[in-house]
Parts: sequence; C-alpha cells; structure tokens
Amino acid sequence: MRQIALLFLLLPFLLLAQPHEENIKKIFDETLTNSPVHENLRVLCKEIGSRLSGSPEAAAAVEYTRQLMESYEFDTVYLQPVIVPHWVRGDREIVRVLNSEKLGNFELTCTALGNSIGTGAEGVVAEVVEVSSIEEVDELGSKLNGKIVFYNGPMDPTLINNFAAYGGAVLQRAFGASEAAKFGAKAVIVRSITNRQDDIPHTGSLRYKLEMPEIPAMAISTNDADQLSSILKDQKKLKIYMESSAQMLPDVLSYNVIGEIRGSDIPEEIIAIGGHLDSWDVGEGAHDDGGGCMQSIDVLRTFKSLGMKPKRTIRAVMWMNEENGLKGGKEYARVARENGEKHIAAIESDAGSFRPFGFSSKGNEAQRTKLQSWKDYFTPFGVWSFDQEGGGADISPLEDHGTLLISLRPDNQKYFIYHHTLADVFEAVDKRELELCSASMAALVYLLSEEGLE
Amino acid sequence: MRQIALLFLLLPFLLLAQPHEENIKKIFDETLTNSPVHENLRVLCKEIGSRLSGSPEAAAAVEYTRQLMESYEFDTVYLQPVIVPHWVRGDREIVRVLNSEKLGNFELTCTALGNSIGTGAEGVVAEVVEVSSIEEVDELGSKLNGKIVFYNGPMDPTLINNFAAYGGAVLQRAFGASEAAKFGAKAVIVRSITNRQDDIPHTGSLRYKLEMPEIPAMAISTNDADQLSSILKDQKKLKIYMESSAQMLPDVLSYNVIGEIRGSDIPEEIIAIGGHLDSWDVGEGAHDDGGGCMQSIDVLRTFKSLGMKPKRTIRAVMWMNEENGLKGGKEYARVARENGEKHIAAIESDAGSFRPFGFSSKGNEAQRTKLQSWKDYFTPFGVWSFDQEGGGADISPLEDHGTLLISLRPDNQKYFIYHHTLADVFEAVDKRELELCSASMAALVYLLSEEGLE
Repeated sequence: MRQIALLFLLLPFLLLAQPHEENIKKIFDETLTNSPVHENLRVLCKEIGSRLSGSPEAAAAVEYTRQLMESYEFDTVYLQPVIVPHWVRGDREIVRVLNSEKLGNFELTCTALGNSIGTGAEGVVAEVVEVSSIEEVDELGSKLNGKIVFYNGPMDPTLINNFAAYGGAVLQRAFGASEAAKFGAKAVIVRSITNRQDDIPHTGSLRYKLEMPEIPAMAISTNDADQLSSILKDQKKLKIYMESSAQMLPDVLSYNVIGEIRGSDIPEEIIAIGGHLDSWDVGEGAHDDGGGCMQSIDVLRTFKSLGMKPKRTIRAVMWMNEENGLKGGKEYARVARENGEKHIAAIESDAGSFRPFGFSSKGNEAQRTKLQSWKDYFTPFGVWSFDQEGGGADISPLEDHGTLLISLRPDNQKYFIYHHTLADVFEAVDKRELELCSASMAALVYLLSEEGLE
Repeated sequence: MRQIALLFLLLPFLLLAQPHEENIKKIFDETLTNSPVHENLRVLCKEIGSRLSGSPEAAAAVEYTRQLMESYEFDTVYLQPVIVPHWVRGDREIVRVLNSEKLGNFELTCTALGNSIGTGAEGVVAEVVEVSSIEEVDELGSKLNGKIVFYNGPMDPTLINNFAAYGGAVLQRAFGASEAAKFGAKAVIVRSITNRQDDIPHTGSLRYKLEMPEIPAMAISTNDADQLSSILKDQKKLKIYMESSAQMLPDVLSYNVIGEIRGSDIPEEIIAIGGHLDSWDVGEGAHDDGGGCMQSIDVLRTFKSLGMKPKRTIRAVMWMNEENGLKGGKEYARVARENGEKHIAAIESDAGSFRPFGFSSKGNEAQRTKLQSWKDYFTPFGVWSFDQEGGGADISPLEDHGTLLISLRPDNQKYFIYHHTLADVFEAVDKRELELCSASMAALVYLLSEEGLE
C-alpha cells in the first residue's frame, strides 16, 4: 500500500520524465540510422579541403554550408560579415641543420606557425639554443641574443585530460617568439605540441606582442625535436638555416554562416550551437573543426526530420577565424548584443569528433546545476561527465551576456595525433563517433529548448 | 570547531584512502610514461602476425610471450598444455554470382567462416534464397532444399552497446549453417557481422550441430551483401557458385602461457588477468586479442617496475583457442580445480584496446558491490562504468569456482570495424588507449590484491 501511495506521489514526475527520455531516444535513433552528417563532412573535407581564413576555400565552405542549410529548409539562413586576417604560408619551408659533426647537413620536417612572418629569401642562419619553457628563456636572457631559440618542452603524458597537457605546452608556441625576441633572438623553432612520437609537424597560431620585434617561428616534428636535442647534447655550437615564405596579407571580408529554426513558444530565447568553419591550411580540418560544424547543422536537421518543433529558437553557427584571430566569435557576440538578442546557452563542438563522454560548462551555479540535473538522460548513451568546467573559444565572447557556455567533450586521447596537421583528414573521423556527437548535441539542445535554464 | 572535529573523525579514513589513490596514480603515471606494452604488441603483430590455434604462428606466440615474461623475471612462468582444434582456410575462396541479368557473372569479396568445411574442388552451385534471421529459415522450411541460404540480417545501429547489436546478429553466423542444413540447404552465405558499410568480409566461428549435415559457410562484406540483396529483389532465380578449401585437420598440442607474481601475504588467493593468444588467420589479431594479452603481461611488469609487492598472487594468463573452441579457458579452469586453487577474481580484456570506460562483472552481490565501491578511484582516469553485468569467454569456466568474473570495457563504437578481419592490425591500436587499458587493469588488480573481495 505504501508503495502504491509512493507511486501516486511520483506519477506527475514520471509522466513528465517519460517524454524526454522517449524523445532523446528518437533523436539518437534518427541520427544513428539516417543522419547524413558523415557524408556532409566528406564533402567539406574532400571537395573543399583545408580552409584557412581569407582563403578561397574558406569562401567555398561559407557557400557550401549556406546551401546545405538552405536545402534543409531551416526557417532562416544568412551570412554575417566578418573581417578576418589573411595569413599565407607560401611555398618555401626549410629547417636545415648545417654542421652536425655526425650527420653533416640535413633537413628537419617543419611547418611555419600561423601568423608568423617569413624569413625573406635569404633565410636566417644562427646557432641554436634549446630551452624547455618560456621561464628558461627569461633565465638565459641576453645569452639568446642573435640565436635561434629551440623550444622543446613536451606535453605531460601523465595528464589524462590531454587538453590540460596541451595547455601546459602551448605557451611556447603561442608566445615563444615574442619572449625570445625580447632578448634579441633571430627566430624560434618549436617542438610540435603533441603527445605522440612521429614525423608530422603541427602548426597553430602564435601571437606577437606589440612591443617586441616580430621574428619567424616554425614547428618541427617530435621525432626531429628529439633528434635535434640529442645532437645538441654532444655539440653545443650547432647552426641551423631556416627559411619560410609565410606572410600576413591585408584583411579580407568573410562570414559567419547562420541557420535557425524559430522557437514555437519562446522564440526570443536563443540556443546557439556551432563549430568553426575555418581550419589550418594543412590537412582537411576534419576533427578541427569540420566535424563540429557538420554536427551543428545536423542538430537542426534532426529536429526537422523528426517533426520536432523547438519551443525556443535554435541556431546553428559556423564561426569564421577561430584558428588565428577569433574574429567570427567576437563579431557574433557584438551583433547579438547590438540586436538585444538573449542567448540562454551556447554549445561549441571544437574538441574533435571522437566518442562523446560529456559536456563541460561555464556559467553561474544555477545554470550549471540545471545542466547537470539532466545527466541521467545521457547515461544510457555513454555520455556521463557533466561536472567539468569550461566553455569554448568561439562562444567565449558571449560570457558577459549571461549565456551558459557549454562544450561537447569527446574523448581526447587521440586528438593530438591530428591537431593542426596534414593528418586531420576525413578518414580520421569515424562515422559512428561523429553521429554520437551529433545526437548528443541534439539531445542537449532539445532539453535546453524544452526546459530553458530558469 | 565543528569542522575540525569532523576532520578528526574522518582522519583514519583519509589515511586509509590516501595510499590507494597515490598508488593508483603511480600505476597510471608509470604506464603512460614507461610502458613497453605498445612495442610488445608491435612484435606480436608484426613479427608473428595472425595466430590461429594449431598454426605455427600460434606456437611462436606461445614462445614469444613465455620469453617476454621470463625477461621481466616474474616469479613463475610456465606453459599449460591444451589440445586445440586445427582449422585451416586453404588457398581457395570464391563466391561468384553466375547469372545476374544486369551484371552477368562476377565475384563477391568473401571469407570462409572458421570451423566450416570446404566445398571440395567442384564447388557448390545453387539458387540463392535471402533471409534475415534464423526464424525466417524455420518459416521457409523445405523451400530451402537444395538452395544456398543467404543470411542478411544487419546489426542494429540504434543499440549504443555494439556488443549487444553483435549478439543480436551473430546467431546467423554461429548457427545459421546447421539451421539451413536442417532443411536441405547446400551451403550458406552470411552478411559480415559489422555495423559498417565497407568491402571487408568478417570471419568468425560457426558451430555445427551434431545431428545435422555439415555444409560450407562463407561471409561476404556488407557492401556486397547489400548489392546481392538488391539484385535478388529484381531477379528471384539468381545462382551462385561457392568454392572453399577450408578444412578441419587433426587436433594439435598447444599451450596456455602463464606468468605469476606470488602474493606476499595471502598467496593462496589468486587474481588471474588475461586475454587470448590465438587470433583469426586474417589480419594480425591486434585488438582481438593481442592487446588484451600484452596488457595483462604489462600489469605484472608495472608491479615489478614500481617495486609494488602484491599481497595476493597475481597471474597473467594467455589463453589459447578462444576463437574456435575455448579449449584453453576450459583447461585452465579444470587444472585450477584439480589443484585446489582459489581464484578470487579473473579479469579478461577481450573487447579491443580502445579507450577504457569501465569494468563489467559477473558474480554474487557482495563481490559486485565491493568492486563497485572502488569506482571513485577510477573516475579521475575517465573510467566510470562499474554497473554493467558480464564476464568474458575465457574466464567463464571459472564461474562455478565462486570467482568474480570481470571484463575490461573499452569503448566499443569502433570495434566492429576491425573484428575478425584483415583490418585488425597493429596500426589500428592507439598507443595511449592501449596504455590506459593496461593501467586500468593494473589499478584494479592492485585494489583486488590489497583488499580482496571479502
């Protein structure tokens, strides 16, 4: 009898809970059975390919995603103008060891860092000094005058969260050039920011400090970094020749690409989901971040395909220029404020299209608690982690709008095999893992749209 | 003040808890920094390769793992004799469509199923009848007399646990031949048991029922299964020629390979961990199950390397013949009973060397509750699922010994890309994911060894 009374007490909640579970199951079933997300990614990667901001391919990607969303008949599809930097690699990239006592003169596998200046046709020749951190540069100080500084700090393999390990090492790439230039260094070479031993160099952006001279910066593969370090142990006076034709061209007009389905009940509350459409100029930007873009479009497609009308407005956004400027994310937030838009939540998928395990978030306690209260809806799909703190780059300018910032968290053990390299191609993304990302995003968008965050 | 009192109350527990957390962190750090598990797997896969029971390569794998464990100076390393079946594929495999109205005569990508008889040099020619389950065979009954039965039931893509989807489809492969033979079918063709669309046929074992005639059975790729099904829709009287030189040879003497570190306090309580050393004769048996074997050896190596003495006896076991007979698992349990050994727990790693997310188990409530109580030790490493029920094939004969059966659960979204195919090679296993499997196993063995299960 007591159990029956309890059942009656719980009944309203059970009735409430049931449809969400059913709808989420429908979303996963639809995505795992019918989603074109993998084929859409193939088109982006194979027919367009890499798409650095300002490149013709970036323009093609803008038009492709616009047409794709039009073809799905979302309520509104439009382009939002953004002025973006236009960096080009050019056709010359050389890092050559000149006077190894054992190996003579030989070349290392290299790639210019994004935003770096080139060396000019004459190149740069100098002795190499190895360091393992920016702090070590500060300690060596004037001893670096006229030298090439070789940053060789590895990612920490004992950190389970590879993004944390990346965060520990990436400062060398992002700020190493200006730090070395402070003491008169002529150029820098950076160990690729990856936890793998291989022959693939990883590019990625650097930022020059305004008050420092700009010097060229290039990355070498981890295998070559180890070899160079090994040679330097025996031979202190090692010279290297560097050449790069990289340069920054004038800014270019580009676009964020936006598609939306207007909310049926509370259209003024917006839920933005997206990835960044630009990629580095090597590889095909499959994990970083073609997958995130295609997932976001697929979330809206899934709603349409299932005939589900979102209560709140849901918007897929392909941000432009995450990789070397974040101009798209900033402009999106600026326009949202100008138009008085209310973004209750923004979800970014920019951590690879691997098997998703959760969502991290950044916002106030009430928002985060509400998000975390939905965890049990996701456990049957292997998506279990809702406590991690963290937003995403493109959505970060929405932080002071009171928006709950959310990042999809796919497993990150393999991300730095591909990140910013020629290996980040369509074939590196698994169809089913990509679909699970898409379905997880759609399920969360569904809950946000039904329940809101208040 | 109240907080300080609380702290004193908690202090004994904090002191107790601290060392486990520290030791588990040490285990992960050691594995992620120094483990040779990936290189050991390379040797097994690249220098030995596939190793079906009874093959010379299986003998090589026995000797390799014996020597490897000797080299790590485990307390005891020995071979346990097992008589195993010796099935061979031979050099002829043909599935040829003979009279397609649109395409004429053409071949499908095929592989004989393990344990299947061959067709003889004359082959088998017959009309094809498509079914999607064993139940459908029973319905058609005598209409299958003289026919080739084509089992085309797919894996259910909406199941998140791909092993559950596999379980739903694999009956066609395991029992389809005898079921069709019951009604006079001449042979069977089976859609590969995978949830991917590709051109790779998947082998795997069948079991003939004693009372039924044995008929040949081969698998075709999912793409070819779809094509064949599509042709059959337009043309009911389609003929196929099948040829296979597969045959079962006389049984062979082989071995389980065992290495152990004797427990310092309670040596009579044994914790067995292992994988199966045999693999199918295609590919290199990397995920299935070279990884599980190499992880298990690495668990003991990690204890040695860290100078950790297990309180209970820990034993790495490479079982022989999981794929087509389970003779090794059965013999291991028989000998354990004969010797009066007490296995408190047995952990099998035979679900691929992907990113681990948990452990499933099979045992009594008290054992499972104890195991689940350790969950929080693993959460920092992304290993979160301890509730799933399930043991493993090789350890299943220990069930009636009162042993807690445990399976490592790596993410299974990609497992059926590789399973029982030429694609299951060393390169398909990620170094870091393999290391995380090894470390997760070692951490659980550590807790079992320290705490026991009572």
